[in-house]
Amino acid sequence: MCELLGMSANVPTDVVFSFTGLMQRGGRTGPHRDGWGIGFYEGRGLRLFQDPKASADSEIARLVQRYPIKSETVIGHIRQANVGAVSLANTHPFMREMWGRNWCFAHNGQLADFSPRAGMYQPVGDTDSEAAFCDLLNRLRTACTQQCCIEQFLPVIVAACQEYRSKGVFNCLLSNGDWLFSFCTTKLAHITRRAPFGPATLKDADVSVDFQAETTPNDIVTVLATEPLTDNEQWHVYAPGEWILWRGGEIVAQGQSQ
Amino acid sequence: MCELLGMSANVPTDVVFSFTGLMQRGGRTGPHRDGWGIGFYEGRGLRLFQDPKASADSEIARLVQRYPIKSETVIGHIRQANVGAVSLANTHPFMREMWGRNWCFAHNGQLADFSPRAGMYQPVGDTDSEAAFCDLLNRLRTACTQQCCIEQFLPVIVAACQEYRSKGVFNCLLSNGDWLFSFCTTKLAHITRRAPFGPATLKDADVSVDFQAETTPNDIVTVLATEPLTDNEQWHVYAPGEWILWRGGEIVAQGQSQ
Repeated sequence: MCELLGMSANVPTDVVFSFTGLMQRGGRTGPHRDGWGIGFYEGRGLRLFQDPKASADSEIARLVQRYPIKSETVIGHIRQANVGAVSLANTHPFMREMWGRNWCFAHNGQLADFSPRAGMYQPVGDTDSEAAFCDLLNRLRTACTQQCCIEQFLPVIVAACQEYRSKGVFNCLLSNGDWLFSFCTTKLAHITRRAPFGPATLKDADVSVDFQAETTPNDIVTVLATEPLTDNEQWHVYAPGEWILWRGGEIVAQGQSQ
Repeated sequence: MCELLGMSANVPTDVVFSFTGLMQRGGRTGPHRDGWGIGFYEGRGLRLFQDPKASADSEIARLVQRYPIKSETVIGHIRQANVGAVSLANTHPFMREMWGRNWCFAHNGQLADFSPRAGMYQPVGDTDSEAAFCDLLNRLRTACTQQCCIEQFLPVIVAACQEYRSKGVFNCLLSNGDWLFSFCTTKLAHITRRAPFGPATLKDADVSVDFQAETTPNDIVTVLATEPLTDNEQWHVYAPGEWILWRGGEIVAQGQSQ
């Protein structure tokens, strides 16, 4: 299994605090030693860092922790391999261009007997996760056009996720830089921080932050994670089958699949 | 204008020495302050570092210089913007997945009145370079299939480059991780290092290396650059219209377009 990290904010925000917590689980406080990755949207660009090494030992992870990259939408992942060897090609998040936007995807879970139809997007590596991402984009390309908005994409995305869920465990994060879609079948939590901001303390490292000192009163920042990253705040736990679409740190649509 | 860096080798080789030379031209010994990027193939994976900052001041560039990533195929670029703002989305090299491989492309030059037909691959940013890369992939997808080999791709790639050349300056590097294609209209040089290896000294920084100490007798390593990076070796300068296909550090096909 793996762990996911997501962020949706209404102002470019660095994710260093949450990333520092997650990285400990990549070989120190958690068993996810088989690679890690994180993608930061900057405008229409996507800055992707990936490493098939354990995040707790990764020089590139240390750079990302030191170097506060500000973004409104972030998708991160640490991997404990089940399907597919430990390699760069099998390291999440995955990225594809569709309709002139960078789409980014990460998955926590495992799909059994998953053989999606071939389509334009093809996996480079051999994980079930990348195969599902390519299948999802192939379905969107078949069902929608470039002119469609997220409200038109959404039923296609939710229907695909429901189908994947029938094959196993499918917690995922997906974005095209404009919004962040999250789907839970077993484990996902979120917290939305807004004024008045307070202090937070990581579960996995001896690190605290006072968000009051780092924010303005209008900031809204939502963090998503497989397991809550802090131990002094109230995280909301997704129900199985629950999905939420985030934009600018706030919920713009949500639902519950059966 | 910009500068290109490429490497093709028969064993995973680090490109730290050449990269160190190129990075100086990104704001120190050269004017290419508008971003830089480098892609390293690792198996079927592509590790891409990009930054819209000047490479001479970039913390990520310093990491890449410190951290010897070994690869058989590398494409790098430093940018002096002409078409398109300075942004991550406009930073080379560009990447797309086609037929289950990561394709990577960087361009030095400028195309005038370039409006390629729309196709499946679309630019995310607004450079003529990314538009040309997308057009090239769209042509390949129309003319070839996944089962085609490079000998079948090559005429399509060369014909497209000849057409782009008629619109301006088009020096480029293109790879799918298996081979490295290079096309020159104005400026490109290469050097192939093999046993007996000797010392080399950078033009742009006070750095020397003794390749003898870092190689085995069977290593073959070709470096490509817009301008020679060392001053004590004999680089081969491409003729206008010349193209070379490299694999494992050696020439597998070459030609001259009119």
